[in-house]
Amino acid sequence: MKCKFCEKEAYIKLYHPKIPLCREHFIEYFERKVRRTIERYKLFKKDERILVAISGGKDSAVVSYILKKFNYDIQCLYINLGVRGYSDKCEEYVKKQCKMIDTPLHIVKIRELLGSGIGELRTTRPTCSYCGTTKRYISNKFAYDNNFDVVVTGHNIDDEASFIFGNVLNWNTQYLAKQGPILPGEGKFVKKVKPLYEVTEREIVAYASAVGIDYVTDKCPYSKGAITLRYKEIINQLEKIRPGTKIKFVRGFLKKRHLFEGEIEKGKINECKVCGMPSGGKVCSFCRIWDLREAVDLSIK
Amino acid sequence: MKCKFCEKEAYIKLYHPKIPLCREHFIEYFERKVRRTIERYKLFKKDERILVAISGGKDSAVVSYILKKFNYDIQCLYINLGVRGYSDKCEEYVKKQCKMIDTPLHIVKIRELLGSGIGELRTTRPTCSYCGTTKRYISNKFAYDNNFDVVVTGHNIDDEASFIFGNVLNWNTQYLAKQGPILPGEGKFVKKVKPLYEVTEREIVAYASAVGIDYVTDKCPYSKGAITLRYKEIINQLEKIRPGTKIKFVRGFLKKRHLFEGEIEKGKINECKVCGMPSGGKVCSFCRIWDLREAVDLSIK
Ligand SMILES: [Zn+2]
Ligand SMILES: [Zn+2]
Ligand SMILES: [Zn+2]
Ligand SMILES: [Zn+2]
Repeated sequence: MKCKFCEKEAYIKLYHPKIPLCREHFIEYFERKVRRTIERYKLFKKDERILVAISGGKDSAVVSYILKKFNYDIQCLYINLGVRGYSDKCEEYVKKQCKMIDTPLHIVKIRELLGSGIGELRTTRPTCSYCGTTKRYISNKFAYDNNFDVVVTGHNIDDEASFIFGNVLNWNTQYLAKQGPILPGEGKFVKKVKPLYEVTEREIVAYASAVGIDYVTDKCPYSKGAITLRYKEIINQLEKIRPGTKIKFVRGFLKKRHLFEGEIEKGKINECKVCGMPSGGKVCSFCRIWDLREAVDLSIK
Repeated sequence: MKCKFCEKEAYIKLYHPKIPLCREHFIEYFERKVRRTIERYKLFKKDERILVAISGGKDSAVVSYILKKFNYDIQCLYINLGVRGYSDKCEEYVKKQCKMIDTPLHIVKIRELLGSGIGELRTTRPTCSYCGTTKRYISNKFAYDNNFDVVVTGHNIDDEASFIFGNVLNWNTQYLAKQGPILPGEGKFVKKVKPLYEVTEREIVAYASAVGIDYVTDKCPYSKGAITLRYKEIINQLEKIRPGTKIKFVRGFLKKRHLFEGEIEKGKINECKVCGMPSGGKVCSFCRIWDLREAVDLSIK
C-alpha cells in the first residue's frame, strides 16, 4: 500500500480518515494535529513557561518531545510515587526521554518527601484515588512554587472519551462540567492543558515509534483491571463500526458541556490550614491523606 | 439449583439481584416489578381506558397479557404496515395473543388505508424513520379518535438504555429531554406510557415462556443491522461486568433529565392543515409522507 501523498510505502493506515501514510507524512500529519489542538483550544502562547508532567509512558514522552520540537519553553516533572518494582523503572525511562530532547527534568520522590510510597499508605479507599490526588497536588504546587504558567499532561482522546463515557454511564454530571482540553488557572490553581486531546492512543504509539521514542509499556500494578480500560475497549468497538465516533463523541460533549455547569457543587474554597493551597475543607485532601503538619516545599533549589 | 424462596428447582437465575427463582416465584417477581413501575411513575389509574399498541413480538404480548391479568380496561391495536412476508405473519400472532387474553383487537391496515405498504414509499430516508412516524401517528390518532386515555407500548429497559446511550453518544440532547416511562398527554397528544420500563429483555422472554405466550421472533426485514442492536450488546457487556449497570444508567438518567430540558426546540405547535392534528409545520409529517389530501378516519365503526 502506498502513501496517499507520495510514492513511498505506507507506514500506517489511519482509521479516520481512512488514509495510508508513509512515515514522514504521518509525522507531519500527527504534528499538525497537535499544533491545531493547541491553537483551536488556545492552550498556551509561545512565551509561557510550561511544566510537562512526565511519567515514563508513551503519552507524556510524546507530548514533551513534540513541544520541544515546536520550540516551546518546557521543563519536565517526574513524580516518583515509590511503587516498588515500577516507579524506579519509570524514572530511568524518564531520564532517557529528557536527555533525548535535552530538557531539564525535576524529580520529586514521594518516599523521601513524605516518608512512604503510595502503596504503603494505610487507607480504606483504592490506591488509585490517593495516587490521583497526590499527582494533581504535587504537579500543581510544583508549578505554582516555581512560577510555571501551565501544567501539560499527556491525556489523549481515548482517555478523554472513556472518562466522559464512564461519567455519563454513572451520571456523575458534576465531573463533566470541568472536563476538557484546558482548565483555566485561578488563584493558586495553575492552568492545566492537554495538547494530545485529539489524537488517539494508536496514533501516539505509531508516532513514538516513528521518531524513536522509547517508553515504559507496563501498567502501574495498582491500575490493573481498571474499568476505564473496558470503556476504552467499548469505544474502540464503536469506532470500528462507525469510524469517527470517538472524536464526534468528545467534540459533541464539549459543545454540550455547558448543560452540566449547574451541577458543580459550589462550596467555598478555603486555604488549607497546613499548606495554604486551595481546599474545600479546613485541611486539603493531600495534607489529610499524608497526615502533614507543614507544607511540602517544592521550590527548585 | 433451588429457588431462593421455596424448595422447587430454579427456573431462572436473575442477574441483578443474583437470585435463582422457580417458575412461580419468577412470575410473582416479574409481575410485582411491573406493578411497581406503574405505581412509581404513576402511569395510569384503574378507570382509564387503555390502548395497547401490539406488534406480535414478545414485549407488547407480555404487556397486554399482564395488564389484562391486573384487570385494567384494555384494548389492543395492531398496525399492519404491509411489509411483505412479515406484517401478515405478525397479524396472525397478534390475533392469537388477543384471543388468549380475551381482549378486543383493532387492526389498521396501512395498505388499505393509504394505498401502499411502508416499504413501497418512494423516499430518500431509511424506511425505519417513516415507519416510526407512521406508527406514532396512527396509534395516537386512533387513541384520540376513540377516546382512549392512554397508549401503552412494550418498550423495555434494554430499549430505553440503548436509546439513551445512542443519544448521549451522538449528543442528541434534544431527544433526551422527553425520554422516560411516561409522556403526559397534551391537547390532541394522548398520554404514552411504558409499563415494562424497568424489566429486561431476558426477563420478558422468560416470563412469556413461563406463562405460555407465543410470539414472533423474526425482526422486521428493514431493521436489520440497526445500530441500536450494537448498543444493546454493549450495554449487556457492561451489565455482565457490573450487574445493575442498566437500571442505574436509566434511573440515573431520569434524575438528570431536567438538564436537557432547555434543549427542546420550542417551535409553535400548529394544527395540520390536512388532518387537524398537532404539527410543527403547516402539514404534519405523516400527511406529508403519505401525500394526503384529507385526514385518515380511524374511529371504530
Ligand atoms: Zn508520503
Ligand atoms: Zn494542604
Ligand atoms: Zn420458588
Ligand atoms: Zn396531518
